[in-house]
Parts: sequence; structure tokens; C-alpha cells
Amino acid sequence: MTLALRLARRGWGRVWPSVSVGCLLVKDGAIIAQGWTQPGGRPHAEIHALEQAGEAAHGATAYVTLEPCAHHGRAGPCCEALVAAGIARAVIAIEDPDPRTAGQGIARMRAGGVAVEVGLLADEAREVAAGFLLRLALGRPLVTAKIAASLDGRIATHTGASRWITGPQARAFGHRLRAENDAIAVGGQTALLDDPTLDCRLPGLTDRSPVRVVFDGRLALPLTAQMVRTARQQPTWILAREDADKARQRAFKDAGVTVVPVPVAGERMDLAAALTCLGDHGITRLLVEGGGRLIAALLTEDLIDTLHWFRAPMLIGGDGTPAVAAYGIDTPDTARRFRRVDSVFLGDDLLETFTVER
Amino acid sequence: MTLALRLARRGWGRVWPSVSVGCLLVKDGAIIAQGWTQPGGRPHAEIHALEQAGEAAHGATAYVTLEPCAHHGRAGPCCEALVAAGIARAVIAIEDPDPRTAGQGIARMRAGGVAVEVGLLADEAREVAAGFLLRLALGRPLVTAKIAASLDGRIATHTGASRWITGPQARAFGHRLRAENDAIAVGGQTALLDDPTLDCRLPGLTDRSPVRVVFDGRLALPLTAQMVRTARQQPTWILAREDADKARQRAFKDAGVTVVPVPVAGERMDLAAALTCLGDHGITRLLVEGGGRLIAALLTEDLIDTLHWFRAPMLIGGDGTPAVAAYGIDTPDTARRFRRVDSVFLGDDLLETFTVER
Repeated sequence: MTLALRLARRGWGRVWPSVSVGCLLVKDGAIIAQGWTQPGGRPHAEIHALEQAGEAAHGATAYVTLEPCAHHGRAGPCCEALVAAGIARAVIAIEDPDPRTAGQGIARMRAGGVAVEVGLLADEAREVAAGFLLRLALGRPLVTAKIAASLDGRIATHTGASRWITGPQARAFGHRLRAENDAIAVGGQTALLDDPTLDCRLPGLTDRSPVRVVFDGRLALPLTAQMVRTARQQPTWILAREDADKARQRAFKDAGVTVVPVPVAGERMDLAAALTCLGDHGITRLLVEGGGRLIAALLTEDLIDTLHWFRAPMLIGGDGTPAVAAYGIDTPDTARRFRRVDSVFLGDDLLETFTVER
Repeated sequence: MTLALRLARRGWGRVWPSVSVGCLLVKDGAIIAQGWTQPGGRPHAEIHALEQAGEAAHGATAYVTLEPCAHHGRAGPCCEALVAAGIARAVIAIEDPDPRTAGQGIARMRAGGVAVEVGLLADEAREVAAGFLLRLALGRPLVTAKIAASLDGRIATHTGASRWITGPQARAFGHRLRAENDAIAVGGQTALLDDPTLDCRLPGLTDRSPVRVVFDGRLALPLTAQMVRTARQQPTWILAREDADKARQRAFKDAGVTVVPVPVAGERMDLAAALTCLGDHGITRLLVEGGGRLIAALLTEDLIDTLHWFRAPMLIGGDGTPAVAAYGIDTPDTARRFRRVDSVFLGDDLLETFTVER
């Protein structure tokens, strides 16, 4: 199942709005097929594996990271394909809460004579499918924040210079994170000041640049920004207040940008609603790359699930740009706390991964 | 020698202006004595070990972390004591650059028939004796900065609240650092706002509270501050501009505080001169606990040698007190960089230790 989960991770960022699943077929102690959800979401992992195995699937055991689907979509349901191929036993990590499946996949396989076990490495499987599960449960994507800062928590100097705080290994890892998400987001201020391209520039992964998202309530981004100019090559969405200037919305649309209208809450764009809009558009995994104000706003509403904090062993000083803007913390016990789940040295830098304690 | 170096570390913070040395006596493959420089600096490690061994020292090998002294002080020179005890062989990590010894200890032992080898674990021995060596070479103590910050580099919230950012294990480690230094320093602003006691409150180490030092150019600290009120129980020194108000100097002295006059450079107290004053007073190991302005000022003049950075997995936000104030960094390539030499998890927190790249 560990290997099946690793296969499932291959689909991160490439299968939305589907979920990426891994499926391993084992027979007589040997792996006979390794399947995973293919780019665009089809074929499903089970079909991908069955195609590799052919006749040999008969009598094999299938390890699947998520309950095989029971619904007819572009192809027949996977649960039936497994039965038809003569799979003898299926080990499934977690049930699929999608109401079109929700236990029916398992039931139909059992009815078809397959011995089914559920629950192996369930926690890990929930983590691999977290974006899909969150979108089903809450309507929003999994939100991962990525921050590259100095020891003293600065993401740029007072002049705005941020090249480079972290070293090449950390930056390469950052690009890999981009490839593993469905969309990458920045705040309007960062889009304006840094004019980033937000693409994945890793050799071999340049075709995996995800949707670019800008939180830009009042459409302040200039039409000359790099992301706007290349919107026809790499999808660019702007989350804007639903009452944003119509002519400006039209201008962005004419440039190939998708303008997503978001309800307003009080004075500002409703961030939770903005994420729901992304969920509605099928995004399951969102990487937020800053800046400090967007991160602070998401923290305030408890909308960050995972945090990747890259830290370079340097001090920029108190006039540098803070990684996280003020978000109303008066005493340390009210500050948002995280649980460290991983840490790894990348050259001179340290990457720590945290999840939110809820 | 590794064990001898560990013995030497026991003297950190307790033997200034002397150096802490470790001395192991080994005979027939067994350790027969473990000596280290005793509190106050006497007896020296070699004498401490010889006293334990008695007659058994005859024919033994001595492992010493620093060349035995050759000068007559309160006691006879250690090199002669080792010869007189019949030590057959001495393994010495590094020579003592103190001009009163500087190779003469080794020469006299060789003349006395001892087989002497020099250089085993020399780098480690230089690290253990770093405060002593720096004071000899540059006239100032080894400067270690200790910072306890949130992930985003804040040492307090905007209200000044800092209890607690790091957890109990990290705080205990911080108290151990206090015990391992000759003096603990804070900036005037921190002394004023936090009114700290700067003592070592670890069970078993409460007798090891070092000298307290406040960098307070204009003597702005109130006479009612805790450190002033307890100055007769635990030494308290204020580094002040030499032109600071005389009546105020007198008032502090009357309260039992040692006022150390420091030359002025430009508009401010000369920090390098301030450290030299501490060196003149015998301090070899100085722990600087903040605040952000003192750290920034020391960074500017490249006066920090070691950095202990404790980090709690929480975010305080951009209105919190920065760990390091602005110190004139315009681009990341001019920011002060450090080399990570150690990292250890302390409960939920991470402690990273850095040395300065020079």
C-alpha cells in the first residue's frame, strides 16, 4: 500500500477535479502492474493497472488507495472492471465519500466475489487524497502555504529584493511543490510588486505549470503583468470582488484571463468564499506563495492546512518585508500554532513542514 | 581527549578570567583521574587530576585540552607538577598562546623526560577554549547571541508579551546557556521594558547565575529595576557612555551596580570598545539575550560569533517585535549569513546553532 500511495502522489496537480489514486496488482508475491490516475483524470488507476496486467490480473490482489468508483462516467465503473478482470482480493485504504460511490464500490466488488479489506494505511491515504476529500467535505481546496524566509522571518529586504534568500536546492523544491498542486496563488500586492510568472521551471516538469491564481479584489494588476500577457499559454485566474469595475473585468477577459467573481464580506473580498469559488472550478490542491498580507488574512480565518517554511541561515533585519503581516495577535497563547510533520535540510537551508493544529 | 574536552566544558562560566581545561590521567588502559579547572580558576585541571591519582600518577599518560601552564601564579606551574608526579606521556590538544606559557610548558615537560604529543582534537579544543582564546587575541569575549522567536522571527507580540513563545524544554536549555557563560547581556530597551532578572533558575545550577550586563549608554534604566535591586546578590554591570550623567552613575554605584564607562563613537556608545571593556574585566564568554536593537548593532559591527536560535512553531505576525532590528540590508547577498553547526528538537521547538562565516 505504501507503494500504491506513492503512485497516487504522481497524479498530484494533474488530475483535478478528479482524485489521484494508486493501484498495485500483486500475484504470487510479485508486482504485476502499477497504476495511477492518468493526467486529466482518466483512465483511473485501476484501469491503468488492469491494462498493464492483461490476463494475468485473474486471481491477483489489488492494493488501491481509495475505494474503486461505482459510477458510470467517461468509462465504466472501476469496481466492475476489477470484478470482470477476475481480481481475487482487494485491499483498500479508505472508502470514497463521493456520494456516487460511498461504499457501493466495495459492496459491488464483494457481490462479485472479491474478498475486500478496508483500512490499511488509512491515515496516509487520507493525506494523499486530502485535496479531494476537503473539496468534497468543505467545498474548498487543500490550502498549502509556501514561505521562503530568512532566519528572522523576512521574505525580502526593505527594497523588495528577494533574490535570493534561499539557495538552489530549496528553490528547486519550491518548483516541485508547484507541480504538485492544481493551482498556485499569490496576493494582489505580490503580483503587482514582484510580477512573477508562477510557472514550474524544473527540467522535465515544465509541462506541469498549474493554474495561476491572483487574489486581486479590485483588479489592480496591470494588464502588462507577465501573468496577464501569458494567460493564453498558462491559465491565469483572478479572484476579484463581484462588484469590481466591469470594464476592467472585460479587459482581463479579453486578455485571456478568467475573472472569478467573489462575494464581498464587510470591506473585503470574502476569502472563504474565494476558496469555495476555486473549489467550484475544480481546484483540489492550492499552493499559496504569499505575500505576507494574503498569508495573514488566510491565517485569521484559519484557512491554511499545511505550511512549508523554507529558511535560509541569514538575517535581513527589522526593515525587511515580513513573511506574515499583522493578524491581531496580542499574546503568544493566541498565536496560530502548527505541528511539525517533517524537516529536511536543503543545502544551507532548512525546510520544515507543518500542519495546522485544529 | 573527547572526555577531557567534556570535563573542560564543566568549567564554562565558572573560571573567568581563567580558561577551563580538562585533564584525564590514564594508566594501563584505565582512567585513574578526571580533572577540570575548579570554580574560580584554581586549582587547575592538572592539579585537580593529580590530587585524585596520588602515587598512581607515576608512569601514567595525561590527556590535557590545553598546554599546561608554565608560570607561577597562586600555585606552581602545572608543567612542573606533571613532571614531578612522574607522568610518562602527555597528549595535549592545543598550545596555550598566553605569553607566560606559549610553548614553554611543553618544552619544560619534554626537558623533564615526558613524551609530549600536541594536536589531538585541536579544532574541538579551540572551540571549548574559544572565549579565552578570543580574549587573548582580540581583547573581547566570545559573543553568543540567544534568540527565542516565532517561525516568523518575532520575540514578542506588539503588546510586548513574550510569555511564552518557546516551551519549557527550550527555556530550560536557555537557562543552561546562562550557566555556561561568564556574563549575560541585554540591551537597555529590553532591560527597561522586560525588567528581567537574568539569573539561572535551573535546579542544581542556581548558584551559577553569571554577571548581568546591561548595554545602557545613557543610564536610562530605573533604579527600581529588578537587576538594580538585586545587584548585591548577583553582580550587575552597566555599560554606559563615559560621558553619562555623573550623579546617575553615582546612584547606580550606591545601589551596588558596577558602572563601566565606555568610549563614544559618533553618536553612540562604541560597541567594540564596550566588549573590550568586558574583556578587560575578565569576561571570556558573553551571552547576549537581545533585544533586537542590540543584536542588530552587534551584527553591523560583526561582533557575534555564535548564534543559538530557538524557534517555536507559531506565527505572531508583522506587528510583533522583531528578533533583529533593521541593520542596513538592501539586498539578500549583503545580509549576514551563518553556518549551521547543530540543530536539535526541544519539545515542539527547534534549536539551531550557527557560527558566523568569516
